[in-house]
Amino acid sequence: MTGSVIIAGLGPGNPDMVTPEVADALAQATDIVGYIPYVARIPPRDGLTLHASDNRVEIDRSRHALEMAAGGKRVVVVSSGDPGVFAMAAAVFEALEAGPQDWRALDIRVLPGITAMLAAAAAGAPLGHDFCAINLSDNLKPWDLIEKRLRLAAEADFAMAFYNPRSKSRPDGFARALDVLREACGDARPILFARNVSRPDQSLRIVPLTDATPDMADMRTMVIAGSSATRVIDTPRGPILYTPRSA
Amino acid sequence: MTGSVIIAGLGPGNPDMVTPEVADALAQATDIVGYIPYVARIPPRDGLTLHASDNRVEIDRSRHALEMAAGGKRVVVVSSGDPGVFAMAAAVFEALEAGPQDWRALDIRVLPGITAMLAAAAAGAPLGHDFCAINLSDNLKPWDLIEKRLRLAAEADFAMAFYNPRSKSRPDGFARALDVLREACGDARPILFARNVSRPDQSLRIVPLTDATPDMADMRTMVIAGSSATRVIDTPRGPILYTPRSA
Repeated sequence: MTGSVIIAGLGPGNPDMVTPEVADALAQATDIVGYIPYVARIPPRDGLTLHASDNRVEIDRSRHALEMAAGGKRVVVVSSGDPGVFAMAAAVFEALEAGPQDWRALDIRVLPGITAMLAAAAAGAPLGHDFCAINLSDNLKPWDLIEKRLRLAAEADFAMAFYNPRSKSRPDGFARALDVLREACGDARPILFARNVSRPDQSLRIVPLTDATPDMADMRTMVIAGSSATRVIDTPRGPILYTPRSA
Repeated sequence: MTGSVIIAGLGPGNPDMVTPEVADALAQATDIVGYIPYVARIPPRDGLTLHASDNRVEIDRSRHALEMAAGGKRVVVVSSGDPGVFAMAAAVFEALEAGPQDWRALDIRVLPGITAMLAAAAAGAPLGHDFCAINLSDNLKPWDLIEKRLRLAAEADFAMAFYNPRSKSRPDGFARALDVLREACGDARPILFARNVSRPDQSLRIVPLTDATPDMADMRTMVIAGSSATRVIDTPRGPILYTPRSA
């Protein structure tokens, strides 16, 4: 089989954060597959077919990509950020594992991208010491497991990056997460809310846990909670959140 | 003050993984500051001064960068991977916090890069669900804290990415870390050793914990341990390690 599936990370939104290898893969593709707003970031051109699909159909989309590759197409599956972090790479491998044996001979590659957590952290350096990344969506795992991970991460004194903190269909989980964090980390722990990170309308906000409210986050917001060592430097250009290396 | 400090991530080694915004910052710089092998990745040109320094002088290097910026230079501090993950961004902010008040008016920016963990994970998708990142060096923290974090991360059932697993000056820690992991995760847990990731001489190896030995890692190796849900797909092109999204 001569087709291929490349699972590529488009980064957080700023075109200047797309790596040259991803740009090259997009330029060579015959077919682009992905969630509607990510496919919308790819300029149309002759010879390129765009296949945009809705959220929550990741396995269907992955099967479609693998089928097209088995038929000889050069398919690029696009994710925002990095495809390996709460994105399409795991979905494609789930579909590969469950699919026909001959798919396993396909050329399948993952091209990394700047994941939202790194772009948000670049407002300072809150992930400068040991940290964890937790998807706060309970679409694919029980809420109890999320709470357990929050408590253990606090006990381990990790800085914590939270993906998908809050959506219209899950309005309440993030409030519970903030309650767990306040109980485990105390009221003073600094939290960064980074919305539309790297885009022209980016907004950043640093507050102590006691002032953090659920409405500060939505699906376009990356939330980073500091460890016990994380601190804020006040500067004329605004506060900087960072975690010293010796935390 | 018109000078600036940009703390830029060069990615894991492949030039095609350097983002355009980082390439642009390097093209505009008057001075490049960093650890010898990272500065060696910057081609010399007229008008650019390269300041390469040895390992473990991160604070001196940061002060030097801030001083030059206060003097009007456009300084780029280079890190391998992402500057915010076990790299120079935290060191620069430590120096900033401890330094003269007028440094705080400087234009200081962090430009993210592809950190080693994402490049290594791109061999599959082991970080497709909740995960943590731990620096296994005990140069700046007590070893007991590392062991505590390993045990709590295993209890939280995170996939785990390990930076700086083993060096000539720390030959024994990684053997202890493997012992802790075997005790906490069992012998079958898959481990990825990714050496010189993204470079022409990249080597990848996936073994169960029972077969993992300390000599499989050095300072050029990224180690990723799966969660309890992580599995291996056998393909004609080699094994693929991934963690399903519903783990």
